[in-house]
Amino acid sequence: MEIKTGIFQGRIKMRVNTPTETDSMKLASLNQAGRDGTLIVVSRDLSRGVKVAHIAGTMQEAIERWAQVAPLLQSVAAQLELGNVADTFNVDPALLASPFPRAFQFLDGSVYLHHMEKARKARGAEMPPNYKTEPLMYQGLSDRFIGPREPMLITDETLGLDYEAELAVVVDDVPMGTPASEAGRHIKMLMLLNDYTLRTLTRTELPKGFGFMQAKPTSAFSPVALTPDELGQFWDGEKLDMPILSFINGSPMGSANTGRDMFFTYPTLIAHAARTRSLSAGTIIGAGAVSNLDSQTGYACLAEKRADEELRDGKATTPWLKVGDRVRIDMLDAKGASLFGAIDNAVAKG
Amino acid sequence: MEIKTGIFQGRIKMRVNTPTETDSMKLASLNQAGRDGTLIVVSRDLSRGVKVAHIAGTMQEAIERWAQVAPLLQSVAAQLELGNVADTFNVDPALLASPFPRAFQFLDGSVYLHHMEKARKARGAEMPPNYKTEPLMYQGLSDRFIGPREPMLITDETLGLDYEAELAVVVDDVPMGTPASEAGRHIKMLMLLNDYTLRTLTRTELPKGFGFMQAKPTSAFSPVALTPDELGQFWDGEKLDMPILSFINGSPMGSANTGRDMFFTYPTLIAHAARTRSLSAGTIIGAGAVSNLDSQTGYACLAEKRADEELRDGKATTPWLKVGDRVRIDMLDAKGASLFGAIDNAVAKG
Repeated sequence: MEIKTGIFQGRIKMRVNTPTETDSMKLASLNQAGRDGTLIVVSRDLSRGVKVAHIAGTMQEAIERWAQVAPLLQSVAAQLELGNVADTFNVDPALLASPFPRAFQFLDGSVYLHHMEKARKARGAEMPPNYKTEPLMYQGLSDRFIGPREPMLITDETLGLDYEAELAVVVDDVPMGTPASEAGRHIKMLMLLNDYTLRTLTRTELPKGFGFMQAKPTSAFSPVALTPDELGQFWDGEKLDMPILSFINGSPMGSANTGRDMFFTYPTLIAHAARTRSLSAGTIIGAGAVSNLDSQTGYACLAEKRADEELRDGKATTPWLKVGDRVRIDMLDAKGASLFGAIDNAVAKG
Repeated sequence: MEIKTGIFQGRIKMRVNTPTETDSMKLASLNQAGRDGTLIVVSRDLSRGVKVAHIAGTMQEAIERWAQVAPLLQSVAAQLELGNVADTFNVDPALLASPFPRAFQFLDGSVYLHHMEKARKARGAEMPPNYKTEPLMYQGLSDRFIGPREPMLITDETLGLDYEAELAVVVDDVPMGTPASEAGRHIKMLMLLNDYTLRTLTRTELPKGFGFMQAKPTSAFSPVALTPDELGQFWDGEKLDMPILSFINGSPMGSANTGRDMFFTYPTLIAHAARTRSLSAGTIIGAGAVSNLDSQTGYACLAEKRADEELRDGKATTPWLKVGDRVRIDMLDAKGASLFGAIDNAVAKG
């Protein structure tokens, strides 16, 4: 951690004396007080939370003034671990909004080329031009994300609803023209991401060239966003060497490692997006459905499983998501504890 | 105007007695007090403004509580016209941010098919599939719009910077599945829009299918947003029967009528976007570079002028925008007065 001003002197002294303290933290938003929710600091084990309105009212406010507020939030997080904070409460994921209930920008890449190659092969589509020289990315909708336990509403079950388990980063203000070599330091938080996709509509929207309008209805994020330090040596500043788990109705779908077989890293995605424009603080950047070359790691979306079935059996037998199905996405630490909390959305009729 | 509660009784009575009053209004944002600016009501002639923090601090706040705040803002607007408001100030467009300095969503259609057909013919590209059965639309960046008089910064003059003169609408909350027949009533404001485009990059980005990441760097909007009533009978609830004017370095480029040769109207664009998701209050929806079949109306972007040159002379002679060039976009009432104020951006090195 960089030490910038005198106000942290007391804290730093304390840090030396209290080895359980940490620079890192987990943040979430209560689904309270408006469309941006209410920012809370969450304990490492995800059990306890505390409001921090005196520091920042919302996640958006926090990321916009990150250099000022992060040390103050970290201090709360440290004291929360020590049991020194009053007015804490039990964190019920059902009462949480997305860490960013909405954002001014959500960009999603597709950097696991194996996933794209397989999915396109199955539907007889070509790979896009230049896919190995620059990342494929789209501007996603961000005006409202569903909460980590909120139902995913669909109007039409026949549109081929799929999930995509992804890891996303959150940046602070990124100046236009920032190179990949300098982009990594703008990454302030990470979240798990479920990028819902209506596969029937991607077939008609992608050929139009204008990206996704109806085919990517909204996304869900993990209960908490955490700082890279929470991930220890598994986060190397560019990618995360940990498996992302997904389940449909409780059945494991896959556990692909998010850092493996990644053709472009997060800093490269950021630099690509920032080539002709600045990116505002709070921009969320995903990297696409995770997919490893090692088939033992399974799937992070149904499309790839169905593609394998089609290539192997001539037809896909795994159905798309239906009303009543549940999608769970999680990531565990070495002791089996959830790092971000699980995304767990039921599909419901909208 | 719909009359909903008793609190407007007094106002309505007054309205009957003061024929200069109006249900309509013009709103803008001072480039002050943070990333969302400060909401002001602007006089019809664009000369005077007044802060309305007691009603709503920002445009976003206003559109989110539109049913409650619109009548209060209209009342201020009416009193401003009558000269009954204290604490007014001269409105200097150079001190204005975009009416929405940033937004949670910006969607842009391409409904003037004539423009698309000509532009694609010139670059030898096919028309997209289904372009006559459903509107072409993309999710545009919205995390920061430049102000109406702010310079447009570009890092690389060789990327083919173009402008696109457009008319955009702003909606309140639109439920998922809203049909076109009901979408029009969600239109609360209109603005002029300059959708900057880097044409060299559209050629490489469009074939990838994922929309525009680098090719649409940011957009500028007119100094004020106005309510549909400001446009009288020229706004029919679906489209606007008025020409949009554009100028490069003072030279007129065109005056195409925004309501003519529109293949899909604004309510159809809204319904298309809302098919699989809700649209949050403050979503801005453009309809693409205006283009009329009548060639006398000129151009609303350089690409179309260059396409005509290529088709006629075998090569384009009109250059793309260069550092130092100025783009002006305006719309005038019957007396020649600017309705929205003019967008007037210089191109500068970023």
